[in-house]
Amino acid sequence: ACHNGAHLSDEMKAELERVAALIGTPGKGITACDEGPGTVGGRFEDVGVENTEENRRKYRQMLFETPGVNEYLSAAILDPETLYQRSTTDDRLFPEVLDSLNIVPGVKPHLKVYSLPGQSGATVMQGLDSLAARCKEYREAGCRFAKWRSPIEIDLATGQPSDLVIEANMLDLARYAIICQDEGLVPIVEPDISLKGTHTLEDAIYINVKVQSVLYKAMLDHGVFMEGSILKSNMVNPGKSCPKSYTVEEIAKANVDVLRRCMPAAIRSGNYLSGGQSLEDAAARLNAINQLGPQPWNLSFSWSAAIQLPMLALCKEKGGLCLEEMSALYLEELKIASAAALGKHTPGPGEGDHKAP
Amino acid sequence: ACHNGAHLSDEMKAELERVAALIGTPGKGITACDEGPGTVGGRFEDVGVENTEENRRKYRQMLFETPGVNEYLSAAILDPETLYQRSTTDDRLFPEVLDSLNIVPGVKPHLKVYSLPGQSGATVMQGLDSLAARCKEYREAGCRFAKWRSPIEIDLATGQPSDLVIEANMLDLARYAIICQDEGLVPIVEPDISLKGTHTLEDAIYINVKVQSVLYKAMLDHGVFMEGSILKSNMVNPGKSCPKSYTVEEIAKANVDVLRRCMPAAIRSGNYLSGGQSLEDAAARLNAINQLGPQPWNLSFSWSAAIQLPMLALCKEKGGLCLEEMSALYLEELKIASAAALGKHTPGPGEGDHKAP
Amino acid sequence: ACHNGAHLSDEMKAELERVAALIGTPGKGITACDEGPGTVGGRFEDVGVENTEENRRKYRQMLFETPGVNEYLSAAILDPETLYQRSTTDDRLFPEVLDSLNIVPGVKPHLKVYSLPGQSGATVMQGLDSLAARCKEYREAGCRFAKWRSPIEIDLATGQPSDLVIEANMLDLARYAIICQDEGLVPIVEPDISLKGTHTLEDAIYINVKVQSVLYKAMLDHGVFMEGSILKSNMVNPGKSCPKSYTVEEIAKANVDVLRRCMPAAIRSGNYLSGGQSLEDAAARLNAINQLGPQPWNLSFSWSAAIQLPMLALCKEKGGLCLEEMSALYLEELKIASAAALGKHTPGPGEGDHKAP
Amino acid sequence: ACHNGAHLSDEMKAELERVAALIGTPGKGITACDEGPGTVGGRFEDVGVENTEENRRKYRQMLFETPGVNEYLSAAILDPETLYQRSTTDDRLFPEVLDSLNIVPGVKPHLKVYSLPGQSGATVMQGLDSLAARCKEYREAGCRFAKWRSPIEIDLATGQPSDLVIEANMLDLARYAIICQDEGLVPIVEPDISLKGTHTLEDAIYINVKVQSVLYKAMLDHGVFMEGSILKSNMVNPGKSCPKSYTVEEIAKANVDVLRRCMPAAIRSGNYLSGGQSLEDAAARLNAINQLGPQPWNLSFSWSAAIQLPMLALCKEKGGLCLEEMSALYLEELKIASAAALGKHTPGPGEGDHKAP
Repeated sequence: ACHNGAHLSDEMKAELERVAALIGTPGKGITACDEGPGTVGGRFEDVGVENTEENRRKYRQMLFETPGVNEYLSAAILDPETLYQRSTTDDRLFPEVLDSLNIVPGVKPHLKVYSLPGQSGATVMQGLDSLAARCKEYREAGCRFAKWRSPIEIDLATGQPSDLVIEANMLDLARYAIICQDEGLVPIVEPDISLKGTHTLEDAIYINVKVQSVLYKAMLDHGVFMEGSILKSNMVNPGKSCPKSYTVEEIAKANVDVLRRCMPAAIRSGNYLSGGQSLEDAAARLNAINQLGPQPWNLSFSWSAAIQLPMLALCKEKGGLCLEEMSALYLEELKIASAAALGKHTPGPGEGDHKAP
Repeated sequence: ACHNGAHLSDEMKAELERVAALIGTPGKGITACDEGPGTVGGRFEDVGVENTEENRRKYRQMLFETPGVNEYLSAAILDPETLYQRSTTDDRLFPEVLDSLNIVPGVKPHLKVYSLPGQSGATVMQGLDSLAARCKEYREAGCRFAKWRSPIEIDLATGQPSDLVIEANMLDLARYAIICQDEGLVPIVEPDISLKGTHTLEDAIYINVKVQSVLYKAMLDHGVFMEGSILKSNMVNPGKSCPKSYTVEEIAKANVDVLRRCMPAAIRSGNYLSGGQSLEDAAARLNAINQLGPQPWNLSFSWSAAIQLPMLALCKEKGGLCLEEMSALYLEELKIASAAALGKHTPGPGEGDHKAP
Repeated sequence: ACHNGAHLSDEMKAELERVAALIGTPGKGITACDEGPGTVGGRFEDVGVENTEENRRKYRQMLFETPGVNEYLSAAILDPETLYQRSTTDDRLFPEVLDSLNIVPGVKPHLKVYSLPGQSGATVMQGLDSLAARCKEYREAGCRFAKWRSPIEIDLATGQPSDLVIEANMLDLARYAIICQDEGLVPIVEPDISLKGTHTLEDAIYINVKVQSVLYKAMLDHGVFMEGSILKSNMVNPGKSCPKSYTVEEIAKANVDVLRRCMPAAIRSGNYLSGGQSLEDAAARLNAINQLGPQPWNLSFSWSAAIQLPMLALCKEKGGLCLEEMSALYLEELKIASAAALGKHTPGPGEGDHKAP
Repeated sequence: ACHNGAHLSDEMKAELERVAALIGTPGKGITACDEGPGTVGGRFEDVGVENTEENRRKYRQMLFETPGVNEYLSAAILDPETLYQRSTTDDRLFPEVLDSLNIVPGVKPHLKVYSLPGQSGATVMQGLDSLAARCKEYREAGCRFAKWRSPIEIDLATGQPSDLVIEANMLDLARYAIICQDEGLVPIVEPDISLKGTHTLEDAIYINVKVQSVLYKAMLDHGVFMEGSILKSNMVNPGKSCPKSYTVEEIAKANVDVLRRCMPAAIRSGNYLSGGQSLEDAAARLNAINQLGPQPWNLSFSWSAAIQLPMLALCKEKGGLCLEEMSALYLEELKIASAAALGKHTPGPGEGDHKAP
C-alpha cells in the first residue's frame, strides 16, 4: 500500500527531504516571483514600465542578484518563462544563478483557475493534465520544487467555500504533490484563502482548519512523503471588510491555533503568502506568530506583492525601471521579513492590527 | 446550494433530459467509434488497411450511413477528428449526417491515462484542463453529448483498485459531468472495469458496487443533473482468467444486482461497453440481463470492438477496406445487439457463459 | 470483503428478502404503533383516557384485530411493551395474533435522542449498545423486523442539519441495519426530516437527497443486504411555516425526484411516515406520488398519528375509550391509505396542497 | 459552526486545558488501573489472590498511596467501581485521595466490545448510549477525565482493519470526546492496535497513520477542543509473530514518524499503552522515542499490565497479596517509566528490540 512516499527510493526521499530542509532554513524565506507575463505586465503598466520580456528578465535578475539576498532567501518561485532566461552578469540561466547562491529555484506548474459550475463562482485550479511531463522538463531546467496555488474565497452568504469546493481543491493539491515528488520536485502546497470578505477572525479560523485538515488528510491518503513537502498558506485573518477589529496578537494566535490543530509536524516549514497585506502588516503578523514560541515547524514568508509593490512604486516616482533603487529597497524589505521570520522584528505601532473599515 | 442541476436553466435541463431520453430509446444503442487515429490505425494495420485520414473517414461514413442503422442506433460517439470530416454523399459534416438520421452525435473529450504514483500502475484519466472550452467547441460542431472513460483494473494481489484510485477516478468523472452539462452536453459517465484478471464474479460484484456507489454519490455531491446523464459501464464479469466457470444467467444476475444496489432510477439508460467480449458473448449477456425483467432503466449497448473487429476481419479476407461487405455485416450485428437490448435475442448454446480457461 | 450481505447464509438472506417482500406488498402499508407508554399516555390524556397498561393493551388489540385490517396492512411496528401483551380474544401474544393475520410484527429497538454537543440542538438516536442482544430477544418474541428512527430538523439559520449531523445519524442507521440483519430482522431505516421550519420545497429536496444519499452509501459500505431492508421516510415537504404555497402535484414530484435520484432499486419498499400531516394531506400526497407512474419500489404508508389522532378524537367526544367507533373509523382510514398506496384514492379539493400560512 | 470547542464557555475550555496540561506534565505518566472486576479477577486468580471487592480496593489503595508515586504519576484511570471506594487511611474516597496527591483521577466510561457483522470478527466499542449521564455522574464523583479504548487488530489476510472498521471506531471515539468535554471531562482517546499478528513494522506504520489520521480528522470535524484532549496510543510495533527483527531505534523512529505525520501539536500529550509489552521493552522503546529529540508533545506512559503483572507475580511467590513488596516494586517500575518518559533511562542490552520468533 502506498503511504508517505513508500513507493519512492530512499535516495529520492533523502533528496526531497534535503531540499525541503533547505527551503525551511530558519530566518530565511521564499521570494515569490512566479507571476505570469500578464500579471507582471499589469503591475509594470500601472507604474509606467513597458511589459517586455527583457524588462521582466532585468527585473527578475535584480530580484536574484541583489548582493546579500541569499542571507534572507532560501528559495525563489519562478514563472516558467524565467527558467529559460539568462543573467547578463555571466550568461548563466537563472536557475543556475540561484543555485550558486544557495537559493533553491522552483516553479509554478499550474495553469489558470476554472469556475466550477454550480458553486457561485468558486474555482478549481487547472494544470494536472501532463503535469508529470512539465515537472520533468522543469527539473531538467534546474528546478528543485514546484508550487501549486489553490485560491479559495470565503462568502458566508453563498456558503462558500462549500465542502465540495474544499474537497475538490485539496484533493487536486494532493494529487499535484504526489506527481511532483515522483518527478523529484518538492511540492509546495498552497491553499490560498483570500482576504476578501466580511468574515470574522473566528470564521476564518473555522474555515482555515476545515481547509487544512482536508488537505493534510488528502496528502496522507495519496501517499505524499510529508517530510519532503512544504506548506505555503495565507495568514489567518478576518476579512478585509470585517467590521470587527483585532490586534496583531489575536491574529497571531489564530494562526498558531490553526496550524497546531492540523499541520503535521513532519512538514518542515510553513511559508505565508502576503495576499494583499502590506509588508508592514504581514511582517508584524509573522513576527507576532514567531514570538508565540517555538513551534514544530519553521514559520516564514513567501511574499510577492508585499515586497514587490513598494519597489514598483519607486518606478512610478522615478519614471521607469530604477533597478538600483529597487534593489536597495528590496534588501531592506528582506531584512524585515527575515527578522519577522525569527520573531526579532520590531513593528511600528498598530502594524499588523486589523482595523474595522 | 448546488444540487441536481439547480444552477441550470429550465430550458437547459429540459434539453439535456430530452437528449438523454433519445439516447435511451428502448431497443436502440450506441455505436462507439471514438478511437483516436492511433487506435484505429492499429486495428487497420492488423488487417492490411492503410491508416490514412481518408480511410478513417470512409470507414466512419459507412458506420453512419449504412441504410437502416438508425433503426438500431440512438447515438454515436465520435473522435474529435470525425466531427470535422464530411460525408461524400452530400458533403455534410458527420454530426449533421447523424442528426438527420436521428442518431445523436457525441464526442470523447478526454485525453490519455496517467499512472498515479504509488498505485501499482493504476491510472487516472486526463483531460479536465480546458474541458469547458473543448466542450463548447464540440457543441458548436454539433455534439449533444460527451463520453469520458475511466479505466480501472482489478488486481487483488496489489489491492487495486484502491479506495484512492476509485475515489480519484469517480470524482474526476463527476467533475467532467458537471462541466459537460454546463456547456449543454449530456455526460455519459464510463467507469470501465477491465475483464483482465483472475477475480471471481463475486469479487467483481463487490468492486463494481464500490466503484458505482462512489460514482453516483460524487455526481449527486457535485450537483450533476442526474436525469440528463447516461451511464456507460463494463458488464460485471469474472476476470478473463478466473478459474471458476459461470453461466450467462449468473452473469446477468450479477449485472442486475449491481445496478439495482446503486444506480439511481433518475439516470435514463445504462449502455454497456464490450471491453474485449465477443459480440456473441456480449449480446447473450445483454439479452439475459434484459430477460431478468423490467428495470428502472433502459439497458442497452455501446459497443466498439465487439462490432467492429468482425467487420475488420473481413478486410483481411478481402485484402482491403471492403465497405459493402462490412456494411452488410454491421447491420446484422446491430440487429443482434438491438434484439439483445430488448431481451429478444436467441443466443447460441454456451454463448455468454464464462468458461474457466 | 463484506458487501451486501455476503457474510450471511443464503437461508438468512432468502428469509430477509421474503419478509421485506411481504412488508412491501402493493396496496398494503404499515400501522405504526410503537409509541412508548409516555407518548401514548400523552395522547390518551389529551382525550380523557387513562394511561394504564391495560388501556394501551386494549387499544392495540383493536388496532390489530379490527376485522379486515389485514387487507390493508402488511406489517405493524410495536413498542417492546406490546410484544409481551396478550389478546383477550384467544390469549395469544400479539406477535402471534399479527402473524396469524399475515401482518408482519416488528419492533422499535432504539432508545431516546441525545443532543450532540455543538450542533445547535441537533440529535443522534441512541440504542446501539447491546442492540444485538435486544434484537435476539425481540426475534424470539416473534418480531421479524425492526425500525430505527433518526429525526432530523432543518434550520437554515444554524446550518442544520450539518454534514456532521447527517453523517452521524446515517452511519448509525447503517450500523443498526447490519446488526438487525445479523439477528434475522429486516431493518426498516427511518430518516425522519421534520415538517417544522420555514424552508421551501426546493430546500427540502436538497436536504432529503443529501440525507438519503449518505444513508444508502453508508448501507452499502457497511455490507447491508439491500434486498432485505425497507425505507421509512418522511414525505418531502416544504416546512410547515414555509411562506410559499405548493400544489399536491409539485409535492408529489419532489418526492419522486428525491427517491429516483438516490434510492436503490434493490430496496423493495418505501413507506412514508405521516410526521404531523393530516390523514387527508398524507393520503392525497401518497396518492399523487403513486399516480406519477410505476416506480422501482412499492411506495406506501407507515402512519401513526395521521391515523390514530382522529380515532382518539372520538374518545374525547364519547368520553372514554370507544373501541367500536374507533375501530370503524380505523378501517375507513386504512381503506383510504391503501387506495393512496395504489394511486386510486380521490382526495377532496385542496387536499395535499401546502398553503402558505 | 461547531469547531474546536467553540460551543464551550471560555471557563470550560480553560479548565479542560489546565487538566490536559497537568496530565501531560513532563516526566510523569498515567497509571492505568481501570480493569473491570472480571479482568482484575483473572489476574488475581492467576496468582492465587481471591477476587473480592476488598482485595481490589486494597490493591488500588496501594497503587495510589505508595509514598512517592506522585513524583512519577500525573493521572490515574479508574474503573467505575474504584470511584466509590474509600481509602482506609483516612476514609476518603479514592478520587479525593488522588486529587490531594496532585494525581488527576479519571475513569473508563465505555462498556464492552461488539463484533461488527461482516468484519471478520473486528469490533466496535460500546458505551455511547447515556454516556453524557454517566460522565456527569463520574465528574460528580471527582473525575476530571475519561478514557475510551477502541481496540483494533491487524489481520492482513482478511483485510482488517477495513476502512469501515477504522472509520466506525474513530468516529465513535470522536463522538465520545465531544460528549466528555461537554460534561467537563478531558477525553483521552485510545486507539489500541494490537501487538497480535505477523505484520511488519512497515505495515504497522501504514495502518497506524491510517487510523490516527482518521481519528484526528474526525475530532476536528466533531468540534472537539483539541487543546483539552489527550492521546493514549499503542506503540507502533511489528506484530508479535513478525518474522523480521527490528532494533529499538527502528521501532522508536517508526513511532515518531507516525505521530509527526498526523498528530496535531495542539494535543498536549501522547501516553503509550503497554499492550502486552514487558516493562523492559516498553520502557526501552519509550526512552528511545524520547531520545529522538524534542517533539511538539509530551510523550509518556499509561501502563497497566507492564507495571502490574510483575507486581502480581510477587503474590504468587509470596502466596497472597503482599502489598508491601508490591509497593516497593511499583515505585521502582515507575522510576524507570518516568526516566523513559524523559529519555533518561538506560535499558539493558537488547531491551526494546523486536526479535523474530
